Amino acid sequence: MAYYPDSIEKLIEKLIKLPGIGRRSAERIVTYLLNANKEEVKQLSEAMNIVKETVHFCQICHNLSDQQVCSICKDERRARDILCIVEKPSDVASLEKTGAFRGLYHVLLGSLSPLEGKGPQDLRIDTLIKRIQSENIKEVIIATDSDTEGEATALYLAKVLKPTGVTISRIGLGLPVGSNLEYADPATLSVALESRRPV
Amino acid sequence: MAYYPDSIEKLIEKLIKLPGIGRRSAERIVTYLLNANKEEVKQLSEAMNIVKETVHFCQICHNLSDQQVCSICKDERRARDILCIVEKPSDVASLEKTGAFRGLYHVLLGSLSPLEGKGPQDLRIDTLIKRIQSENIKEVIIATDSDTEGEATALYLAKVLKPTGVTISRIGLGLPVGSNLEYADPATLSVALESRRPV
Repeated sequence: MAYYPDSIEKLIEKLIKLPGIGRRSAERIVTYLLNANKEEVKQLSEAMNIVKETVHFCQICHNLSDQQVCSICKDERRARDILCIVEKPSDVASLEKTGAFRGLYHVLLGSLSPLEGKGPQDLRIDTLIKRIQSENIKEVIIATDSDTEGEATALYLAKVLKPTGVTISRIGLGLPVGSNLEYADPATLSVALESRRPV
Repeated sequence: MAYYPDSIEKLIEKLIKLPGIGRRSAERIVTYLLNANKEEVKQLSEAMNIVKETVHFCQICHNLSDQQVCSICKDERRARDILCIVEKPSDVASLEKTGAFRGLYHVLLGSLSPLEGKGPQDLRIDTLIKRIQSENIKEVIIATDSDTEGEATALYLAKVLKPTGVTISRIGLGLPVGSNLEYADPATLSVALESRRPV
């Protein structure tokens, strides 16, 4: 039973396929679009098509880019002998926001997840090893997530990268800055204890 | 500082204007679109433009419709002498889902809100009064929200519709079906006591 005109039902159907959008949010978005300026809606739909047509993965690090090689890989001011390995392009954005890392990245485009049938062949590990061997990389920081999949990926990477002789480290795990000890979960607390540093 | 290619930043900027979508959700939507089939993205953007071009408000009840007069107003099987007054088109959809109302609707397209500078002239009250006078309406059910704005609108409507001589009622307020007394807020409980019915 359709309570809205056909065209709206069709749009709602397509909107609820987007992540984080249920039927209620889709209805609210449609109401917003109906009240919005026609030009604004056109610009939004065009922006989607443009992204789809122009954005690809960087040939070197697999970060998102509208060119063959992304702006980070091209940046001559960055340290070219240190690689930070992350799961997905948005992780690059998160790390760049901190301004704390001035080396290059390598995006795996996923993590090991036996449950989802994702093995090492589904990640960009082959190009990573090639980069390490050919680009004179001295250090590699594994910055995958600290969940089960991310930890499994980190362990696997540490194993396969060892023969290359590169220095391998894992980003620090522990209490988030500004948080209270009493609210931290036991797993985080025990990792925080293990990774204690002299002051 | 842009951590994504320009075209992605532009799309994110446009997405966060939509209701309920923050930067994080916008980034997730972009990731989804990048992984989606090109045809799918095209269909989504087209669906938006089609809605914008074809959907208007019904000339009679101001519900959403892709025709001059909506399917509910056209439906000859519905009772034509009873009107249910709601704030917005999605309220029509909510009531239609119940199947409990077989009359016609009148959508105000808003509610009285002095804080937002919305007065009676911003609502479709003039056409409502004309309908009541010319269409032989016998009964009117005021089904605005039970928040401050909805209640104010209901009170105002009751006052201005009284001279037309039509029977006016307000939808029942009280304990939601399936809820526990102990979790109900005091305002709901006192309304529920007031609107008690003999059994």
